[in-house]
Amino acid sequence: MGGGHGKRSWVKDLRAGTDLEESFAVRSVDIRQRRGGGPYLAATIGDRTGEVTALVWQNVDQLREVLEPGRVVAVKGQVQRYNQQLQVVVRQAEALPDESVDDALFVRSSAADPELLWKQLNTLIEEVNDPDVRQLLFRIFSDAEVENLFRSAPAARSMHHAFRSGLLEHTVSVTTVARGLARHYGLNQDLVVAGCLLHDFGKIWELEIGTSIEYTDDGRLIGHIPMETLFIDKKIGELKKFPAETRRQLLHILLAHHGEYEFGSPRRPKTPEALLVHMIDNLDSKMAGMLEAIAAQGSDDEAWTPYSRILERHIYRRRMPANDNGDD
Amino acid sequence: MGGGHGKRSWVKDLRAGTDLEESFAVRSVDIRQRRGGGPYLAATIGDRTGEVTALVWQNVDQLREVLEPGRVVAVKGQVQRYNQQLQVVVRQAEALPDESVDDALFVRSSAADPELLWKQLNTLIEEVNDPDVRQLLFRIFSDAEVENLFRSAPAARSMHHAFRSGLLEHTVSVTTVARGLARHYGLNQDLVVAGCLLHDFGKIWELEIGTSIEYTDDGRLIGHIPMETLFIDKKIGELKKFPAETRRQLLHILLAHHGEYEFGSPRRPKTPEALLVHMIDNLDSKMAGMLEAIAAQGSDDEAWTPYSRILERHIYRRRMPANDNGDD
Amino acid sequence: MGGGHGKRSWVKDLRAGTDLEESFAVRSVDIRQRRGGGPYLAATIGDRTGEVTALVWQNVDQLREVLEPGRVVAVKGQVQRYNQQLQVVVRQAEALPDESVDDALFVRSSAADPELLWKQLNTLIEEVNDPDVRQLLFRIFSDAEVENLFRSAPAARSMHHAFRSGLLEHTVSVTTVARGLARHYGLNQDLVVAGCLLHDFGKIWELEIGTSIEYTDDGRLIGHIPMETLFIDKKIGELKKFPAETRRQLLHILLAHHGEYEFGSPRRPKTPEALLVHMIDNLDSKMAGMLEAIAAQGSDDEAWTPYSRILERHIYRRRMPANDNGDD
Amino acid sequence: MGGGHGKRSWVKDLRAGTDLEESFAVRSVDIRQRRGGGPYLAATIGDRTGEVTALVWQNVDQLREVLEPGRVVAVKGQVQRYNQQLQVVVRQAEALPDESVDDALFVRSSAADPELLWKQLNTLIEEVNDPDVRQLLFRIFSDAEVENLFRSAPAARSMHHAFRSGLLEHTVSVTTVARGLARHYGLNQDLVVAGCLLHDFGKIWELEIGTSIEYTDDGRLIGHIPMETLFIDKKIGELKKFPAETRRQLLHILLAHHGEYEFGSPRRPKTPEALLVHMIDNLDSKMAGMLEAIAAQGSDDEAWTPYSRILERHIYRRRMPANDNGDD
Amino acid sequence: MGGGHGKRSWVKDLRAGTDLEESFAVRSVDIRQRRGGGPYLAATIGDRTGEVTALVWQNVDQLREVLEPGRVVAVKGQVQRYNQQLQVVVRQAEALPDESVDDALFVRSSAADPELLWKQLNTLIEEVNDPDVRQLLFRIFSDAEVENLFRSAPAARSMHHAFRSGLLEHTVSVTTVARGLARHYGLNQDLVVAGCLLHDFGKIWELEIGTSIEYTDDGRLIGHIPMETLFIDKKIGELKKFPAETRRQLLHILLAHHGEYEFGSPRRPKTPEALLVHMIDNLDSKMAGMLEAIAAQGSDDEAWTPYSRILERHIYRRRMPANDNGDD
Amino acid sequence: MGGGHGKRSWVKDLRAGTDLEESFAVRSVDIRQRRGGGPYLAATIGDRTGEVTALVWQNVDQLREVLEPGRVVAVKGQVQRYNQQLQVVVRQAEALPDESVDDALFVRSSAADPELLWKQLNTLIEEVNDPDVRQLLFRIFSDAEVENLFRSAPAARSMHHAFRSGLLEHTVSVTTVARGLARHYGLNQDLVVAGCLLHDFGKIWELEIGTSIEYTDDGRLIGHIPMETLFIDKKIGELKKFPAETRRQLLHILLAHHGEYEFGSPRRPKTPEALLVHMIDNLDSKMAGMLEAIAAQGSDDEAWTPYSRILERHIYRRRMPANDNGDD
Repeated sequence: MGGGHGKRSWVKDLRAGTDLEESFAVRSVDIRQRRGGGPYLAATIGDRTGEVTALVWQNVDQLREVLEPGRVVAVKGQVQRYNQQLQVVVRQAEALPDESVDDALFVRSSAADPELLWKQLNTLIEEVNDPDVRQLLFRIFSDAEVENLFRSAPAARSMHHAFRSGLLEHTVSVTTVARGLARHYGLNQDLVVAGCLLHDFGKIWELEIGTSIEYTDDGRLIGHIPMETLFIDKKIGELKKFPAETRRQLLHILLAHHGEYEFGSPRRPKTPEALLVHMIDNLDSKMAGMLEAIAAQGSDDEAWTPYSRILERHIYRRRMPANDNGDD
Repeated sequence: MGGGHGKRSWVKDLRAGTDLEESFAVRSVDIRQRRGGGPYLAATIGDRTGEVTALVWQNVDQLREVLEPGRVVAVKGQVQRYNQQLQVVVRQAEALPDESVDDALFVRSSAADPELLWKQLNTLIEEVNDPDVRQLLFRIFSDAEVENLFRSAPAARSMHHAFRSGLLEHTVSVTTVARGLARHYGLNQDLVVAGCLLHDFGKIWELEIGTSIEYTDDGRLIGHIPMETLFIDKKIGELKKFPAETRRQLLHILLAHHGEYEFGSPRRPKTPEALLVHMIDNLDSKMAGMLEAIAAQGSDDEAWTPYSRILERHIYRRRMPANDNGDD
Repeated sequence: MGGGHGKRSWVKDLRAGTDLEESFAVRSVDIRQRRGGGPYLAATIGDRTGEVTALVWQNVDQLREVLEPGRVVAVKGQVQRYNQQLQVVVRQAEALPDESVDDALFVRSSAADPELLWKQLNTLIEEVNDPDVRQLLFRIFSDAEVENLFRSAPAARSMHHAFRSGLLEHTVSVTTVARGLARHYGLNQDLVVAGCLLHDFGKIWELEIGTSIEYTDDGRLIGHIPMETLFIDKKIGELKKFPAETRRQLLHILLAHHGEYEFGSPRRPKTPEALLVHMIDNLDSKMAGMLEAIAAQGSDDEAWTPYSRILERHIYRRRMPANDNGDD
Repeated sequence: MGGGHGKRSWVKDLRAGTDLEESFAVRSVDIRQRRGGGPYLAATIGDRTGEVTALVWQNVDQLREVLEPGRVVAVKGQVQRYNQQLQVVVRQAEALPDESVDDALFVRSSAADPELLWKQLNTLIEEVNDPDVRQLLFRIFSDAEVENLFRSAPAARSMHHAFRSGLLEHTVSVTTVARGLARHYGLNQDLVVAGCLLHDFGKIWELEIGTSIEYTDDGRLIGHIPMETLFIDKKIGELKKFPAETRRQLLHILLAHHGEYEFGSPRRPKTPEALLVHMIDNLDSKMAGMLEAIAAQGSDDEAWTPYSRILERHIYRRRMPANDNGDD
Repeated sequence: MGGGHGKRSWVKDLRAGTDLEESFAVRSVDIRQRRGGGPYLAATIGDRTGEVTALVWQNVDQLREVLEPGRVVAVKGQVQRYNQQLQVVVRQAEALPDESVDDALFVRSSAADPELLWKQLNTLIEEVNDPDVRQLLFRIFSDAEVENLFRSAPAARSMHHAFRSGLLEHTVSVTTVARGLARHYGLNQDLVVAGCLLHDFGKIWELEIGTSIEYTDDGRLIGHIPMETLFIDKKIGELKKFPAETRRQLLHILLAHHGEYEFGSPRRPKTPEALLVHMIDNLDSKMAGMLEAIAAQGSDDEAWTPYSRILERHIYRRRMPANDNGDD
Repeated sequence: MGGGHGKRSWVKDLRAGTDLEESFAVRSVDIRQRRGGGPYLAATIGDRTGEVTALVWQNVDQLREVLEPGRVVAVKGQVQRYNQQLQVVVRQAEALPDESVDDALFVRSSAADPELLWKQLNTLIEEVNDPDVRQLLFRIFSDAEVENLFRSAPAARSMHHAFRSGLLEHTVSVTTVARGLARHYGLNQDLVVAGCLLHDFGKIWELEIGTSIEYTDDGRLIGHIPMETLFIDKKIGELKKFPAETRRQLLHILLAHHGEYEFGSPRRPKTPEALLVHMIDNLDSKMAGMLEAIAAQGSDDEAWTPYSRILERHIYRRRMPANDNGDD
């Protein structure tokens, strides 16, 4: 049951009127009443490509022990269409042992290749000129445990890049863009690159990604900015001699990258490099959020996305095509 | 008196203990009392390189007719140093006829060459792929009167780029940066380029630049966003057939480029292109404001700028040198 | 089925325990599950007098093709009462062809007579003294297409006057009140009248009224203030010679009538006339919103309205009677 | 010295090059240094028509005992013009005994006739239909001490109507306007009239008007809304039987007339009558503030007022003439 | 059925799989559809220890007349567990006559003993030194009706201390704490004690506690601050001679105890005593809200409370034990 | 000149008409013009008891080299009274060598005895029960350099406790008060005591106190919260085994003690202990600010303090006497 990654029945590929035999993560379960007092189950199940409603009319007593939120279950049933949406009517379900489950199948993931992103990140480090800054970055990112966490961490719980490897995708995008603008404005590129690569570093401990994304206790009580500041300052302390001025300006970039106090920033940007890292982080997050909202709609018929509570508006979905009109 | 541009005594080059014979714009005049009830004059005079205090102890009755704010006057006097600042003690002053005054000498100007910026702007237009958009931009910018205004207009009265050709410098910078990012995010570059080139276009009528920068009546009552929207829509109407969708999305970029209602934006960005133009406009303005604040201090001794009311903070002036660490 | 306007079974007149055979607009449809996996339908249907829940237990498969939101359908069924609310149990339903549907029956309408309001509007124009302003208003409102749109447009999607002819009712009320106050404060009444008549003019293109009220694409991307400014300035351009000062002050009123930036106003009022139009627009909108909230409750027993999200409070429904105590 | 009201030399009528012998209120005094360490005095003196700078070069030691802020002094000197502004060079000055001073000459006053305003106020009371409300208003306003205070009190310290009888002028204007609108919207006019007449009543104890306007201790610690609520509820208690519902709705209007919590309103309007009183109070205050700012400029040459910190903007001074275009 | 207080089946003690025969307050009722069009009922019932869902599958027509929100009913049924939550399947239900119902059983109550709190309050009054203040407090609290209301009133509808005797518990806690701090900061303890005891006094009329807590009409239209100010000032007026300065400062404390305008405070604290009362009121309210949120969760397994809309955050539930480390 | 601490002429003791020979810190210098173009000097000089204006009419050229802001100078001159304020006319002034200056004489200091405060702080540490927490506090505060800095540091630059030893005074007050309230609310006193003692610890590096108080570079770029977090976490790391849960909750208190994001708090309080530390810090700061404002006025005649920009209000200065009315 279930089977290899290659021939898996992804949620995005389900078709009405077919039988289904596949494993899915249970997102939520609701027990509702039928006539006579007996319950039926309405669950949401999914994998990394999307989510679908699952209904249980039979063996309710047994299956409600099986369908627990957060668990991955092997499901047998049929795909049907109601009210223009697909749903799965479940006949059987069986919990899979945790150790046999590959979480990566059940949580949304970056569309970009993490392997490629990781290489780009390392190239960005190699191209740093300042030997102190480059050494610090190597020391931090060459740690195997850090690499493991950083390659899979999401960048947020829901706003943008809220998927596996989202942190890596966001970090590489921000760093690439900001480095180019640092040159445009005549700033110190090494500081900007280091600030970008480390600005959300603490999120590897702030968020936990299993089959869903949740805050950790430390994430809520300490937060990613203080966590990364503590970690990076300890790493600086392990280096023989790291210039005090570079340390001060680098810590400032991290502490100021949320831009304004009301966004939880303990400092506001007081150097051009800190201003740039803040503004490109902001741009990349908002742009990703908007592009994700547009892409989230399966049908191209609708001119507008549903109201986005994150962006606090509807987004216009009619796109004029991308084009290329010059060398930059 | 006064003399050619080449051998002019610029304010930035004044030295204590020397005689002075040069023309300056009068920024403001204050009449103060001496013993016996007689007044003396304390004026601020300047040229495009800076400003200095001028004191009149003699011929006060005559010279206060001459030293009128906004006028350019030929001055004879001596440069002295008091309290770590230079001041000019004026012996004679004579109003220059308006027609003999080259305003450009007396108002701050872009450090960049307007000729070069204008060429860059035209190259940006030429590289637009969409023939309708390109034709519209040509039609607008090839008008001689528009060119004349656009080449000299400031981008603001005080915030950033508040000097001659500031609008041109800001426009070229925003367009160049945003076009590169449009490619990075897979957006329509032509819309982005047109939106950037036109986003502050109405400022050619909103601000008036003589020896100082002031708002016009239309600037205060109508504002640059409605003025440019009215003008550009009229230009679109003059073209044979301009696609309705392109018009809609272009007008939207202009109307949304201030980003949020509280910054006088009648719309908020609802397309990725509008979001990008808004955010790069914001970045370029804030970055210029910060870099101008750092550069405004003559001495490199002070680690911090004076409190900037525009940025609402002190800026750190100790710079790590610009460097170049890779190809973008 | 359905039948003439005169003997129509309006939603507001439905009675429990009666059979029903009438046409209604479908507002929304929800498909819910019964035992055995079969669905039933819970829809909201309505006409211009109100809305009611409709339940479909039979022929579900067939009827869910028929009951599409936005469509008008002929319904056969029975009115029942559950939980102190009426509901319609539907036995049959048949879609009506679009061309046979009179939208006016299915969308809420102004309680005032549009014919009378339109006459009042024209009298307000005729009484304008300034010939330029009067000519402009005639030119705008005598256009047949404009009249058609303006007579039916709502003034909002949900806040106040959110019904057919709401724009006309709101416009006449604001203009009448503001003209009286212009006299009280010694202002220019012609400017005030023109500003009031045109302040929401762009809503004829911002909102679309079928069986419900929705924003248009232009409404969301451009907005009613820029749309009316573009249109009116074009009409001014068509007149032989319209005084520049009158144009400037009139456009200012339109651009400033939302009062503050945070309400999407690209300008803030800088003339007494603009201040007056803004404040009376605000008063009429809020007063209508409050009076509509009080009237929306069928029963006079309750001292308080439900919490109004628009007014952000409960409204007290115990009214002291209207009275008349002097001549104004 | 000084002389009768009729032939008084008002500040607004001073002319350069003339001798002056008149009494003025001292607004402020600044002692500045001359060569040799001796001081001279720079004072601001004024009457109800305006203010002017006064300079003392002689008898400084003696005159600085005389020129105390708040005092009225008889002045001998000469009017001169410096820097486009008039100033008085004082030769002699003598304090006037408090009992001989008519404060009304030295504090700004309403341009309207307080006698006429008081009659209008009483007519508004007489035209109230509801006998309970009318009786309450009579009881309050027929008290001689109340009349005395209410006829002279200002409506504010600086925002609008900040002059003698300003409260009366503002109250009559608000009541007249709101009564008309109560009829327009079908509200209870008696409640509206009572709410308007009493909405700022507590200001008779909140502000103190001598030669200037200051807050009282009770004004700062208790405020006009609680003070008037305490007073009016006591007056209601003295009546035989005042309907509880009328009392509740009237007190609500007073407690809610600042509209929003952030303007010190302990309640927000929850009845249409309370909403109307709040909005017309707001309109009359802002309109008066704007019209006063426009009128404050002596010269009609300037298109814009100086920046008004109260209105947070410049006001456009070019007025289109008042006109009358219909019967209301 | 139902039975004595001592052997009552409290909601907090219900166990799955047991029969139930007890009286409960009906909080809300929802009528839902079964197959065939027949309804079933889903109600929320509760007592002062909590709430539980009740389902009615039989005798629906009869029982929906019985189960009215706000009423107390005697219920027969069975307790079951679904989806990790208990629910009661109801077979019979019978309305209890109002006069036989002890409301105190059905509304949440203070965990502290009201008798003890009332004694503590009286001790606080007795220890007041200033005879005028003490006499005023005695006069107010010795009134039997006041005592009755004050002993049962809640301190809020939902934020904190939203239960029977909550006002008393909050008042004693605030007064005790603030009196200690008044000594620490060298303030007048009598004013602080009086201000604390009276700061929320008006809530005895603002809120109504039956089987639930609701605002009264006066509560919404006038509010507790004006109501208590009116009452206390009347009581002061009944005393022979109460010092004007004490009255002024005491009223100021009441009027300023919400601290900032935006929290409905007509005044802001301008004396140290008023500042202290405001800040300790705020502390006690927020601390109680947080401790109630932590305690509200039955299971100690969860590290975090559900999102609290009042505190706008999740609260960490892992407590380090209370300890005592010194004498204060 | 100057002389011993005991017989020093403090600013607060200056009397008009006496000769003066004493040393003072120069706060600021302004050079102003006399007739003939020669300058005179107007300086502000002071010691820890206050400030006074000093005027130099003679030897200006020489003395303006001497009177440099920040320097301590020995002054000879005469005390005079002008415009109800004292001023010093300086005849001679001589710079004192830095090494001979006791800064403590020239900067404002706590009125409390630092020796006693330091003992109280140590007692608070000794009374901590939790051995891990106590050991951490000992380790931090027993360091001689820390003691030296902590005993002299101010708590702020201007808001409250802006004087020598202000940090110590504020810390002891907050800790004492919060420990008592931790017992009242049943919280963990050890966490509260540690959180209070360390909450502003980073200010020893954030502010620099010489003859005035200034921010350090690290203070502006990193801030006291991150600095103390980095330091304390390093100290925790040096201990053998510090419980992870205690570390997490202690760091949380430090990171959340500013309460809200907009006050630069990277976290908001999520435990009762963090809430308490935040609110008592806030109370102690505001109370000190208000009591300092009241005490700052030398004369008891005025009922109100000048407008305080920090508290954004005038404070009422009429105090009802402190009294003691019970045991807490």
